Amino acid sequence: MVEPERQTGEEAIVQRYLRPLAQRWPGAFDLLDDCALVSPAPGHELVVKTDPVRAGVHFIADDAASDIAWKALAVNVSDVAAKAARPLAYTMAMSFPDAPTRKWMEQFSSGLRAAQDAFGCTLIGGDTDRADGPLSIAVTLFGEVPLGRMIPRAGPRVGDLLCVTGSLGTAALGLRIRQGEDFDGLTEAMRKEALARFLRPMPRLGLRAALRAEATAAMDLSDGLGKDLGRMCAASGTGARVELNRIPECEAVRLVAAADLQARLRLISSGDDYEILCAVPPDRADHFVAHAAAGGETVSIIGEFTDSSDVVLIDESGSKVDWQSSGYDHFAVG
Amino acid sequence: MVEPERQTGEEAIVQRYLRPLAQRWPGAFDLLDDCALVSPAPGHELVVKTDPVRAGVHFIADDAASDIAWKALAVNVSDVAAKAARPLAYTMAMSFPDAPTRKWMEQFSSGLRAAQDAFGCTLIGGDTDRADGPLSIAVTLFGEVPLGRMIPRAGPRVGDLLCVTGSLGTAALGLRIRQGEDFDGLTEAMRKEALARFLRPMPRLGLRAALRAEATAAMDLSDGLGKDLGRMCAASGTGARVELNRIPECEAVRLVAAADLQARLRLISSGDDYEILCAVPPDRADHFVAHAAAGGETVSIIGEFTDSSDVVLIDESGSKVDWQSSGYDHFAVG
Repeated sequence: MVEPERQTGEEAIVQRYLRPLAQRWPGAFDLLDDCALVSPAPGHELVVKTDPVRAGVHFIADDAASDIAWKALAVNVSDVAAKAARPLAYTMAMSFPDAPTRKWMEQFSSGLRAAQDAFGCTLIGGDTDRADGPLSIAVTLFGEVPLGRMIPRAGPRVGDLLCVTGSLGTAALGLRIRQGEDFDGLTEAMRKEALARFLRPMPRLGLRAALRAEATAAMDLSDGLGKDLGRMCAASGTGARVELNRIPECEAVRLVAAADLQARLRLISSGDDYEILCAVPPDRADHFVAHAAAGGETVSIIGEFTDSSDVVLIDESGSKVDWQSSGYDHFAVG
Repeated sequence: MVEPERQTGEEAIVQRYLRPLAQRWPGAFDLLDDCALVSPAPGHELVVKTDPVRAGVHFIADDAASDIAWKALAVNVSDVAAKAARPLAYTMAMSFPDAPTRKWMEQFSSGLRAAQDAFGCTLIGGDTDRADGPLSIAVTLFGEVPLGRMIPRAGPRVGDLLCVTGSLGTAALGLRIRQGEDFDGLTEAMRKEALARFLRPMPRLGLRAALRAEATAAMDLSDGLGKDLGRMCAASGTGARVELNRIPECEAVRLVAAADLQARLRLISSGDDYEILCAVPPDRADHFVAHAAAGGETVSIIGEFTDSSDVVLIDESGSKVDWQSSGYDHFAVG
């Protein structure tokens, strides 16, 4: 957004770069109407999520425009995937501190097309304007789920096992690499993977069938395991016990934090993981793990829901470990 | 937002001030889930609109919080009303430059409750965070319309009459009063009405039945008659001819601009009217006006759609008048 060539109007942004993304959806009216039409298939209902991203909070202002676009959509798809819903369509409101260049808009729309093709959804409407402050992109996503089959956040029963997809802390490591921090011992492949996890999170859409078949509750992890699990427990009137050594970590996180418990806890609690946290009855756990694997997703069982009011983390000796951070709070920083 | 007492976290804002607004909608899950459920009634589809408002563009940062809340919702309800749809539910993403005080949040939630009660819709989800820049509120509204009965923007046929509700320019006058400008000859009641039109626009929900029965196209006026009519014509491959002296104006606008054509054109073209612009076949115009009146809305016929490619404004002698302003363009200002 520093090149001299500039767009002159919001109409050009919409017509040239965004309209082609809306062509598959008749109810998007080629972005020529004020409103769009969206409806679930018969026997289904719509799952709705709004999660805006902003430069300096969710991405870095000079990240590649294609990566920014991917992330703006992916963080919302991640939420809807955790509800076992299929992404259908989205609206997008963009606020630019300065009119973007053509090149930036080209890269942005190409990243957005890659993301919507990967996730199976279509742009159907939105808004662009100028405002001081960071670049902001607010996607509202519509997913579809069979009637009454959305997996809620409030749902775990005492004794249910606590499961998580993929690995935690990799995106947080990627952010620190993106910010220029140097970590001894990481291979180039590890650095690339960590960076990609931060820049282009991959929603766990492959878990939906397993969730629908077996899970009593689910949510995606965006603000860190401790904080998000606390929310799930608060919404459900349960507690939880998490076993530190069962938390899945990629090789890079293990290498970086092997000898430093505090560093490990910081990475695990930093957020931006976009993994799915869910609850499964103990007698269904084996089925769930196998069903998830059939969908291409790896699941780890990391603890269980309890009748206490606490969310505790324990080490291999059974001792409590302090969560290092309560996770990301938009009002506690900056 | 200048008092010393401050909120400390986004959870408090959601739990204390926003959750009570979501109680009527079971699919809002008391704002305890990441996602919400929304579905149209059988035989209906959802009309979706996202139109964010920002301090310094759509409202003034020290406007009453209750007025800001009203406007954030009303501008979206206005769009959906123009599509002949019934407002059902909305999500809201708020971005604060500083954590708001309790008093501000109390007033904001009370204004939002008044608006959602007036418009018949319910908060079902959203997001709050902190970011530098102006206070920003992005509502995404869901309305319901019988299948296939949304009134499109692209629809007027050559020869259709051009109609508009209420009066134009009043809100623009209200903004200038709000900014401290003094106008000779206005009564206190006129000033109050103009201010109210700027601060608390009233979507023309009473027009929906008439639109559904008679209109070939409709949109709400947010960026000024010239610009928005130009968009409707561009989307439809028609032109339009507007008769200046048939444009409805309130007494205050007439007083202020009686002797000054440029001032009059500026007010009419400034935007923020939130009236409905629509197209009606000439043989249905009488029915339409009567049907609108039965719904409590006043409609004026101000011109017609033509087979030219221009949107022209003519005075009483039939001479062309230059539109003074092309209307509001977010990228052409600031």
